[in-house]
Amino acid sequence: MNSFGTIFRVSIFGESHGPAVGIVVDGCPPGIALSVEDFVTDIERRKGGVQKGTTPRKEDDIPEFLSGIFNGNSTGAPIAIQFKNNNTRSSDYEKQKAFPRPGHADFVAHQKFKGFEDNRGGGHFSGRLTVCLVAAGVIAKKILAQHNIQCIATIKEIAGETDLDKGLQKAIDAKDSVGGIVECTVNNLPAELGEPFFDSVESVISHAVFAIPAIKGIEFGAGFAAATMFGSEHNDAIVNMEGKTNTNHAGGIVGGISNGNNLVFRVVVKPTSSTPKEQQTLNIETGNVESFSVKGRHDLCIALRVPVVLEAVAAIVLADLIRRK
Amino acid sequence: MNSFGTIFRVSIFGESHGPAVGIVVDGCPPGIALSVEDFVTDIERRKGGVQKGTTPRKEDDIPEFLSGIFNGNSTGAPIAIQFKNNNTRSSDYEKQKAFPRPGHADFVAHQKFKGFEDNRGGGHFSGRLTVCLVAAGVIAKKILAQHNIQCIATIKEIAGETDLDKGLQKAIDAKDSVGGIVECTVNNLPAELGEPFFDSVESVISHAVFAIPAIKGIEFGAGFAAATMFGSEHNDAIVNMEGKTNTNHAGGIVGGISNGNNLVFRVVVKPTSSTPKEQQTLNIETGNVESFSVKGRHDLCIALRVPVVLEAVAAIVLADLIRRK
Amino acid sequence: MNSFGTIFRVSIFGESHGPAVGIVVDGCPPGIALSVEDFVTDIERRKGGVQKGTTPRKEDDIPEFLSGIFNGNSTGAPIAIQFKNNNTRSSDYEKQKAFPRPGHADFVAHQKFKGFEDNRGGGHFSGRLTVCLVAAGVIAKKILAQHNIQCIATIKEIAGETDLDKGLQKAIDAKDSVGGIVECTVNNLPAELGEPFFDSVESVISHAVFAIPAIKGIEFGAGFAAATMFGSEHNDAIVNMEGKTNTNHAGGIVGGISNGNNLVFRVVVKPTSSTPKEQQTLNIETGNVESFSVKGRHDLCIALRVPVVLEAVAAIVLADLIRRK
Amino acid sequence: MNSFGTIFRVSIFGESHGPAVGIVVDGCPPGIALSVEDFVTDIERRKGGVQKGTTPRKEDDIPEFLSGIFNGNSTGAPIAIQFKNNNTRSSDYEKQKAFPRPGHADFVAHQKFKGFEDNRGGGHFSGRLTVCLVAAGVIAKKILAQHNIQCIATIKEIAGETDLDKGLQKAIDAKDSVGGIVECTVNNLPAELGEPFFDSVESVISHAVFAIPAIKGIEFGAGFAAATMFGSEHNDAIVNMEGKTNTNHAGGIVGGISNGNNLVFRVVVKPTSSTPKEQQTLNIETGNVESFSVKGRHDLCIALRVPVVLEAVAAIVLADLIRRK
Repeated sequence: MNSFGTIFRVSIFGESHGPAVGIVVDGCPPGIALSVEDFVTDIERRKGGVQKGTTPRKEDDIPEFLSGIFNGNSTGAPIAIQFKNNNTRSSDYEKQKAFPRPGHADFVAHQKFKGFEDNRGGGHFSGRLTVCLVAAGVIAKKILAQHNIQCIATIKEIAGETDLDKGLQKAIDAKDSVGGIVECTVNNLPAELGEPFFDSVESVISHAVFAIPAIKGIEFGAGFAAATMFGSEHNDAIVNMEGKTNTNHAGGIVGGISNGNNLVFRVVVKPTSSTPKEQQTLNIETGNVESFSVKGRHDLCIALRVPVVLEAVAAIVLADLIRRK
Repeated sequence: MNSFGTIFRVSIFGESHGPAVGIVVDGCPPGIALSVEDFVTDIERRKGGVQKGTTPRKEDDIPEFLSGIFNGNSTGAPIAIQFKNNNTRSSDYEKQKAFPRPGHADFVAHQKFKGFEDNRGGGHFSGRLTVCLVAAGVIAKKILAQHNIQCIATIKEIAGETDLDKGLQKAIDAKDSVGGIVECTVNNLPAELGEPFFDSVESVISHAVFAIPAIKGIEFGAGFAAATMFGSEHNDAIVNMEGKTNTNHAGGIVGGISNGNNLVFRVVVKPTSSTPKEQQTLNIETGNVESFSVKGRHDLCIALRVPVVLEAVAAIVLADLIRRK
Repeated sequence: MNSFGTIFRVSIFGESHGPAVGIVVDGCPPGIALSVEDFVTDIERRKGGVQKGTTPRKEDDIPEFLSGIFNGNSTGAPIAIQFKNNNTRSSDYEKQKAFPRPGHADFVAHQKFKGFEDNRGGGHFSGRLTVCLVAAGVIAKKILAQHNIQCIATIKEIAGETDLDKGLQKAIDAKDSVGGIVECTVNNLPAELGEPFFDSVESVISHAVFAIPAIKGIEFGAGFAAATMFGSEHNDAIVNMEGKTNTNHAGGIVGGISNGNNLVFRVVVKPTSSTPKEQQTLNIETGNVESFSVKGRHDLCIALRVPVVLEAVAAIVLADLIRRK
Repeated sequence: MNSFGTIFRVSIFGESHGPAVGIVVDGCPPGIALSVEDFVTDIERRKGGVQKGTTPRKEDDIPEFLSGIFNGNSTGAPIAIQFKNNNTRSSDYEKQKAFPRPGHADFVAHQKFKGFEDNRGGGHFSGRLTVCLVAAGVIAKKILAQHNIQCIATIKEIAGETDLDKGLQKAIDAKDSVGGIVECTVNNLPAELGEPFFDSVESVISHAVFAIPAIKGIEFGAGFAAATMFGSEHNDAIVNMEGKTNTNHAGGIVGGISNGNNLVFRVVVKPTSSTPKEQQTLNIETGNVESFSVKGRHDLCIALRVPVVLEAVAAIVLADLIRRK
């Protein structure tokens, strides 16, 4: 299913080189002020062509409201938003059809969709669709803002370096792509959200987060570091009647339930699959493994574009949990 | 919601010290042979009291079939299984009611359930409920076995040591609890499972996995190590028309879809919250932070009991994906 | 799926002659007082053996709480309730295995469950499972009572007679079974519940109502009579700012949304399939159409037992809508 | 939720006088041939302005594919279809804002959406959205056609008359609107579809059918007539090993499961709420009940437009059941 959520529910559609990508947001309460301007900042943050290391493909990325917004406010009915695709060079992709790109969904898309997939630019699997997540995230953030909740994601590491420019330089030097670590913190999240089985806060956050292309791991609070900690060290001592803890190794979630402290999680973003480097892979026309290099416009480090998407996804999940409460 | 799945769907219930814990398994196809004996091995693997480092609480843990099984086979109707609770010492817990145990769900349960929670032994949040997951896992594994699919989980590290006894000795020496890393591999998983948005294989696996108490992170394939790899290094070259790859940094999932290689993921299990060590935490009766130590029977390293639960949860998820196909 | 609901969600299990039938109620708020005594009245109303025309099978029908209730209150965790089956005469059914009973699910159960169905007494398809609906209904009614909402169902017609004894006498005279009409009214239902697409109040009520065996039609307000009314006649004029109308041809629902007037709907209950009359039907052993008569204990008019079940189902649906609001 | 379905899932959006109405169809298998031409017949059947008694509003109603269709075939990714709104006269509605139209959703929309509703032409509650259902129905019918299943709906009665012109003349003579009865038959439906609790075939059909505006009742097979039948009369005798019955009082469903006979159900369509007749209703500006008459273009008998919508909805439901099988 290309949808997520119980009460606040998003349904995504579109292909990288089709007429449009879009999202339907159901369960938005009425009376949320929404204008095109509200979307600009986050959409700009996601866009390529701005920073060193991101793709020069420029899209206007102007959200068109098809429904659910009237006189500048959400009505309570489903909000449909589309982004027209108008800057695509499909021919880049046509040439390399024989080579299912390593790390990309080309091969699995071909199997899953029995050869009927729109193969241009990754089709439905394209990172292009994250603009829709960002748009839904803008709406979700507005709902959270009514509860004074903020989601803030930042890049912690590029190619193992906390100095991001240094990490990026590694990619440039190696003429290769690199990965990174992105962290998201949610402030003022109320306690009591989530269910132990099976809708723990970790469960629903990770479910949605793994819809973001290139993410291959997630950890909450101390995360994988907990593997080498003692219990007395990892346990966060509660220090007041509101449940505040002196440390936050749990990342704000105990027993699957938010505990009133900051929600903190980190994700690993794999290096961009479309590396400029020549690779060996299968030529499905010949059946042989051959040399191949990816053409087209791509990011050296896709992690650079992830923070705003991660915030959006977290906001979508939490807006739903808040609505379900 | 205390349920998971679309076509193969489980609903869990119960408290640690209530009359019973149990699970309803809906969507099991008819004609799966099921007897009490089929559950023994996995239930024994989960049980405490066997290995160094696990709790001496012994439960008979005999599954009672309430429905859905007739003449030794699944009928196609919902299968309800209960495990009666008959070896509980609630008084252990009564004494420490004033102290919401650090790392445990006591405090959030009290907030979420407004003081009506069954507080004995963690109530509905107890690890006791994982026996239900194991039972549903036995059924799910039988469905997967029809497709020749196996889920195998093993402990990779205890307290940072790959020599498990060494890791465990650390806990004993420190009179504290320790964490660990558990890896699950799924063989013969067919390609094409999962959806890019929002039901990627990573999404649904992690959703269910975070229902297991004490798990705080998950990574697929190379996982967090991908953060320091180059794209040319991380990409798995496809080497034949079945999609087999020479490496498996993707952990068997590309674009959210299984690619026909082994599914591989690892989780971090935090150190058992109930450490024998004295801790500082809130006394909710006095409102002061005081010294406190956990009484009762507990595991030094809960990771030891996780593999069979992790297999079960993976099997539940994959049985559903197979059924949805 | 053998479950229903979004936030307040029930999952049913069991077979007529298996160990037990039961229901798991998820999403019940904490602090609802619940004791066995609370279930007695509604369970008695459903029971056979009391009125002329109902089956002499007597079950104690004592609900056993397996989870979710602690110190006489709901905890907020899933409530599992079982009813043991202890008064069954399976041999009645063994004899007639060759004849899939007309009007019953025997034939479709055999097809759907590939011969693995529990065929005793209708198995999972048995009316016996409605005791579970009634139990969940008791909980749902308590939630509704907090909002001062009542669901009241009454029999309007038996065998076409508004004098019920007269209708029943028709069955006795004809040595046959008869059908009836049952109406449910819900008082004090707030406006705003439901969604035009696809969760109109009519949609969700009818979805759940058709889980009650033997119901073959439902109508809201004027219902089928609307087919011969003029618009000016059918329209309910709004007469005050609360939305009260002078008539209620809409049955309290406009555009799929509750409008603050009484919710009113009627269902038709087909005549009990197990009629004492001899019937012609297929002998699946011989493949011939042969004479056959149903043995066992049965109701002449199953509609007599429907009101409390209908109330229960309406309450389950509305408790969910209230919780989703 | 403005969505329906488990595996084949539709999500609807739009308002009568907004930029567009549309639908997202998720779970359509790849390789279904789909062109604009495929939609023409059914969209024309639904359109006003053709027959005596339907509204003169003419829309081009050309479906625009936004996603999920590539080279003339479904890809397997979500199919988004929009219909632009380009023939609207909102001013008609502006004038009558003080009067929530009796029988319409104006009043409940105002309550539910807290005054933020798009009130033009019924907004999200408009019958205009049924064009989206028809479009999704075209896709669903193509899936069913692969199994040789057809859905065929016809009008049985207008204003109580089986001679439809006669019924319609009643409306014209009375200068009022009238209702009707529409029947849908599904041929070649396989047995085994549906679940007794809570997804009986009756449950899921009626759930979706009540999303069609103006429908106030549904009955399967003999339906409400069963209330006056004897059991021996209503029971359909099985006459061969495929489960064919000599009569079809059950409407093709026994125990909630399709039995291999034709699925037959009927719905009642209330008289169009927008009657030309003057009515008494609340003026929300004055708080008084006043005389009022509906302006704008409307149908004398909305039942005339229902058959193709009913077919569409039935096809959507059954495509999902087939996909879930």
